[in-house]
Amino acid sequence: MTSQIFSPGVEHVLDLSGIFVFALSGSLLAVRKNFDVFGMAVLAEATALGGGVLRDELIGAIPPAAFTDIGYFMTPLVATLVVFFMHPEVARINRTVQTLDALGLGLFCVTGTAKAHDYGLGVVASIALGMITAAGGGVIRDLLAMETPSLLRWDRSLYAVPALVGAGLTAALIAAGALDAVTGSAAALMAFGLRMLAIKYDWRAPRAWHRGSSSEGEQ
Amino acid sequence: MTSQIFSPGVEHVLDLSGIFVFALSGSLLAVRKNFDVFGMAVLAEATALGGGVLRDELIGAIPPAAFTDIGYFMTPLVATLVVFFMHPEVARINRTVQTLDALGLGLFCVTGTAKAHDYGLGVVASIALGMITAAGGGVIRDLLAMETPSLLRWDRSLYAVPALVGAGLTAALIAAGALDAVTGSAAALMAFGLRMLAIKYDWRAPRAWHRGSSSEGEQ
Amino acid sequence: MTSQIFSPGVEHVLDLSGIFVFALSGSLLAVRKNFDVFGMAVLAEATALGGGVLRDELIGAIPPAAFTDIGYFMTPLVATLVVFFMHPEVARINRTVQTLDALGLGLFCVTGTAKAHDYGLGVVASIALGMITAAGGGVIRDLLAMETPSLLRWDRSLYAVPALVGAGLTAALIAAGALDAVTGSAAALMAFGLRMLAIKYDWRAPRAWHRGSSSEGEQ
Repeated sequence: MTSQIFSPGVEHVLDLSGIFVFALSGSLLAVRKNFDVFGMAVLAEATALGGGVLRDELIGAIPPAAFTDIGYFMTPLVATLVVFFMHPEVARINRTVQTLDALGLGLFCVTGTAKAHDYGLGVVASIALGMITAAGGGVIRDLLAMETPSLLRWDRSLYAVPALVGAGLTAALIAAGALDAVTGSAAALMAFGLRMLAIKYDWRAPRAWHRGSSSEGEQ
Repeated sequence: MTSQIFSPGVEHVLDLSGIFVFALSGSLLAVRKNFDVFGMAVLAEATALGGGVLRDELIGAIPPAAFTDIGYFMTPLVATLVVFFMHPEVARINRTVQTLDALGLGLFCVTGTAKAHDYGLGVVASIALGMITAAGGGVIRDLLAMETPSLLRWDRSLYAVPALVGAGLTAALIAAGALDAVTGSAAALMAFGLRMLAIKYDWRAPRAWHRGSSSEGEQ
Repeated sequence: MTSQIFSPGVEHVLDLSGIFVFALSGSLLAVRKNFDVFGMAVLAEATALGGGVLRDELIGAIPPAAFTDIGYFMTPLVATLVVFFMHPEVARINRTVQTLDALGLGLFCVTGTAKAHDYGLGVVASIALGMITAAGGGVIRDLLAMETPSLLRWDRSLYAVPALVGAGLTAALIAAGALDAVTGSAAALMAFGLRMLAIKYDWRAPRAWHRGSSSEGEQ
C-alpha cells in the first residue's frame, strides 16, 4: 500500500481539509445561482466528494470512501452552514478560498494517483485518475449549476496543468519506490505552487492554432 | 434482508408504478423541449431509472436492477408511448402527475434507504442513498434537458426535505428493527404527505442569509 | 466469449479507429466552444471513451477497458493534437468526419452489445448497453460543452435508430449463435448505412402527436 503516504491521522485531517474547501466553493456557487439551502448542500457534497467518488467507481473501490467515512459526508454540510450564515464574509475572502482550493488540488492529485496505483492501475491511468480526483468535483459542480466547466474554459487560469504535474510527479515517485510523506508533500506543494502562480499571473493554456483568424466568428 | 419490505409481488408492482410516473415526467419535459420520440424515450428511461442506477453503482449492486429486470426497462417505453399519443391530455392532468410523482418520491426514498442498508452501508450513507434513489433521476432528467435541476432551485417547492424525512424515518425503523410493510408504508406516506403539502402551500427552503441585501444583483 | 468477434488484432485496430474519430468530434466541438487545449483533450477523451466507460461501469467490467489499455487513452490525445494544429483543415472535411463517426457508431453498437451479453446481461439490456456504448460518449460531450445533447434533438438527423438496428441485429445474431466476423461486420455496416442515409436525406424521428397545433408556443 503506497496510498497511505502520510500517517492515517494526518492523511484524514488533510483529506477533510481538502473536502471542506472544495465544499466552500460549491456552496458559494450555489448562493450565486440563487439556490436554496438544500441546493447549497447538494452542490457542496457533489463538489467536495465528486472527484473521489468518480475515482473509486472507476477503480472498483466500492462503496466509495465518501459513503463509508461519515466525516467525509458531514464535512460539506458544515461548510454549507458556514456559507449559509456568513456567505458575504466567505465571499469577501475569495483569495483565501482560492488558496485553500489550490491546496486541495495539490493534495488530491497526489492521493488520487497513489490510490489508483494501489488498485493495480498502470502509470498513465493512475495519472488520469489523480487528475479526475482533483478536478472531477469542480466539473460536476459546474454542470449541476448549468455553467460551462471552468476546467475547460480558455478564459480561466490553468487548473489542469498543476494537477497533471502533481499526478505525474507522484507516478514518477511510485515508479522510483520513493513516495513517502516528504516526497508526496513536495509533489502536492509543487502542484499547489503552480496553481497559485497560474492564478497570480493569469496563466492560460493555448487554444487551437489559427483560431483567431479562421473561426473566431463561429461563436 | 430488510430491503424486501413488502412481499415480492407487491414491491414489484409498487416499483413499476413509481417508475411509470417518473417516466411520465421525463417524457413530458422532452415534449416541452421539442425532442423527438427517441429523445422522449431516453429522458423517460433516465428519469425513471437514473436514481436507482446511481444507487446500485454506489453500493456495488452490479449490474443495476434496471438492467436485470426487463419490466423496469420496458415501463418507461410504455410511458413514452402514452405521452407520445396523448401528451395534451397528460399535460392537462399535471396535478395528478405531480401527485403520482410524490408517491414515487415516497416509495423510492424508503426502498432506496433499505437497499443501501442491506448492502452494508451505515445510517447516514443509507439515508443519503435513499435520497439519491428518490431524487437522482430528476436531476439527471433536468441536466439532459439543459435545465437547472429543480431540486436545487429556490423557486421550486420543497423536494429534498420530504425525501430526507422518508429516508430518515426508514433508517430509524431499521435501527429499531421495526421496518416492515406497515411501518415502511407509513414512512413513505409521510414523505408523500409532506411533498403534497409543499406543493399545495408552495413551501420553500431558505436561501443564504443576507442574500437579499448583499448579493441579489449578482445574478 | 462472443465479444471477440474479430481477431484480437483486427478488433483493436477497429476500436482505436472508432475512438480516434469520436475524439475528433469532441475536440472540434471544444474548438467551436473556445476551450483551451486541455479542454480539447478532456472533451476528446470523454467523447471517445465515455460510452465504453459507462457500459463497463454498468456491466461490472472494472476497471473499464479505457483505463487498462494505454492505446485507448492515448488515441484521443493524438486526435487532440491533430485538431489543435490543423482544425481548419479538419473542420473542412466535416463530411468525412461524419462518415467516420458513422463507422464508429456502427462498430461500437455491435461490440458493445456483444460485450454486455458476455457479462451475462439479457437481450434487451444488451441492446440498451450497445446503444449506450455507441451514443453515450456523444451525450457526455454535449453536456460538458453545455449543449443540448444532439441525440435528443428533433432537428438532428437520426442517430438512435441506426444504433438500435445495429444492436438489435447483433442480439439476434447472438441468439441464433451466428455472430462472427462476417455477420458482425454486416450488422455494423447496416447501422453505418442507415446513419449515412439519415444524414444524406436528413431523416428525422417524429415528435409527439398534436405537437404542432397544441403546444408549439410553449418553447
